[in-house]
Amino acid sequence: MKPLPPGSTIGILGGGQLGRMLALAAGRLGLDVVILDPEPDCPAARVSARHIAAHYSDPTALATLAELCGVVTVEFENVPAGALEALIGLGVPVAPGPRALAIAQDRVDEKTFLNAAGAPTVAFAAAGTAEEAARAAADLGGRVLIKTRREGYDGKGQAWAASPEAAAAVFRDLGGRPVIVEAPAAFRRELSVIAARNWAGMVAAFPLAENVHENGILRRSTAPAGVDAKTAQRAEDIARKVLVGLDYVGVAGIELFELEDGSLRVNEIAPRVHNSGHWTQDGAATDQFEQHIRAVAGWPLGPTHATARVEMTNLLGDEVLQLPALAADPACRLHVYGKREARAGRKMAHVNRISGL
Amino acid sequence: MKPLPPGSTIGILGGGQLGRMLALAAGRLGLDVVILDPEPDCPAARVSARHIAAHYSDPTALATLAELCGVVTVEFENVPAGALEALIGLGVPVAPGPRALAIAQDRVDEKTFLNAAGAPTVAFAAAGTAEEAARAAADLGGRVLIKTRREGYDGKGQAWAASPEAAAAVFRDLGGRPVIVEAPAAFRRELSVIAARNWAGMVAAFPLAENVHENGILRRSTAPAGVDAKTAQRAEDIARKVLVGLDYVGVAGIELFELEDGSLRVNEIAPRVHNSGHWTQDGAATDQFEQHIRAVAGWPLGPTHATARVEMTNLLGDEVLQLPALAADPACRLHVYGKREARAGRKMAHVNRISGL
Repeated sequence: MKPLPPGSTIGILGGGQLGRMLALAAGRLGLDVVILDPEPDCPAARVSARHIAAHYSDPTALATLAELCGVVTVEFENVPAGALEALIGLGVPVAPGPRALAIAQDRVDEKTFLNAAGAPTVAFAAAGTAEEAARAAADLGGRVLIKTRREGYDGKGQAWAASPEAAAAVFRDLGGRPVIVEAPAAFRRELSVIAARNWAGMVAAFPLAENVHENGILRRSTAPAGVDAKTAQRAEDIARKVLVGLDYVGVAGIELFELEDGSLRVNEIAPRVHNSGHWTQDGAATDQFEQHIRAVAGWPLGPTHATARVEMTNLLGDEVLQLPALAADPACRLHVYGKREARAGRKMAHVNRISGL
Repeated sequence: MKPLPPGSTIGILGGGQLGRMLALAAGRLGLDVVILDPEPDCPAARVSARHIAAHYSDPTALATLAELCGVVTVEFENVPAGALEALIGLGVPVAPGPRALAIAQDRVDEKTFLNAAGAPTVAFAAAGTAEEAARAAADLGGRVLIKTRREGYDGKGQAWAASPEAAAAVFRDLGGRPVIVEAPAAFRRELSVIAARNWAGMVAAFPLAENVHENGILRRSTAPAGVDAKTAQRAEDIARKVLVGLDYVGVAGIELFELEDGSLRVNEIAPRVHNSGHWTQDGAATDQFEQHIRAVAGWPLGPTHATARVEMTNLLGDEVLQLPALAADPACRLHVYGKREARAGRKMAHVNRISGL
């Protein structure tokens, strides 16, 4: 794709905080943004040139988007595949493409792809019935993690099972939907690599982040993570294999387990900008949001080296009330999402706490 | 003023690139922006929650702004004073206030204020007739610079005169409007200091920038400028005197001449974010746009230390065509204004070229 000139318009499916920070980055580059999101007062709409408040599959909305936009991208992976196909049919480039999203939408397809691409995961099996779930648990041995194949995020739609019987029960608890049964990863820590690939096939990875989850939700990322050169290289190799294997265009987040022996396993791919990449806004030469916009707009990728050490912390629910105190702390950079309601556990803002490299 | 909580709305009079970058900074802090600007498709409107396309003095527009906003600010100094008074009358705080703008709108009032505040300028005299202009030129001796008292920017509305007769002619050429007649500054270089003051009276100055003008338009700023500690301290003292003297709230740019003997003279005050402060976006702990939003919203000011050395260059008119090449340069950070027409001399974008401190 030819680089979109300034003044062009980028469509974004999804108007949450990721769409909002993408829109702010696009604005910095002189690009206009149109948000498609059914929510009337969504966070991204308020920093964008236009908001189409309609469902993602609404044909009129998609036609308008195709007419206005030089490229369309997504802020979340669970966009209906048909919407992307429709946009492509209307002649507008879509990045990342439907295949990458389809693979990332299904945990079994995702892990199957990853292992085939040379990016190893934990052992796993698909199960479509309680009996299959029990059998998979028996085959894998010991405790297993059971997740719905599709949807679920921030720890929703998953549970541990300590026995084949428990696995069958979890299968039923999850609503009898198709699941993936995963062997546990005996990991030392959770890392992630955020990487981008543009239409020309150029790939650039950011330094790794080390992540801490609480109740299934990312709480804190520290970057650049303290890893040896070999681990950094392995992670970058994995990122490259994944992006090339998916013919991916845009930024993706790849969550990794670092096992006790130092080897890496891919936990999951997020085909979008990623919470564990928020540190780049204040600690890398280009931030992940601008990098995504550059990638999908056909621009060259920006440099990815770290410029500061950052501890990124999510503010959930009424933790957003800490903002006044954090605003007075000279080490803190604030990123606030403009959400109207501070519901418990909802990501409201994040703070990047800076120190020298 | 109590700090505005996230989710509050800030009004901005003026929707050009300064308003746009203010809106992007407000968006990052979770604040909504309403732009008042008569231009239907102005740059700031496309990154803001709402745009009122009306004249700055339109009573209905001002009433709407007062109803929506927790505070109203400006992106340019030539806002009609009556508009700000009207907003205050409607009960909405305005920052900077009408007095600061009124003083900055009139070059004679400005220089009178500056000298009284202990911030010395070049010698000057007011002239309301061609005869007064000639007499002022004779009194000041030698070559003088004649500017309209009001309006004029980027070198417009001013001319040099080498003799009293020439001064009278310039007065007539400028339309017979009241003027200021200024002695030339034998300056070594042009510097500027960007500083902020919040409602609580806290003042913070950024490191100095060194500026190069071409044809009256800022071409390039380099920051932090190479100055000794004494000069830096003097500039900061001047900034503090100016902001305190004006009871100023927000960011202001103060243009300085560094004379051959190392002393400083104030050239002019810009009661707003300033082109020579754009380097802070990529080279300071807080950027001037966020600092302005913090100041007017009643938040604590952010830290102002430099984090990189930056050379900021304005892209004028069709120089904006250099953007694709600049986007490929890993040392360059781009800021593009989204203006539809690249007219000759028009500020279209700027690029911050980064190097280590």
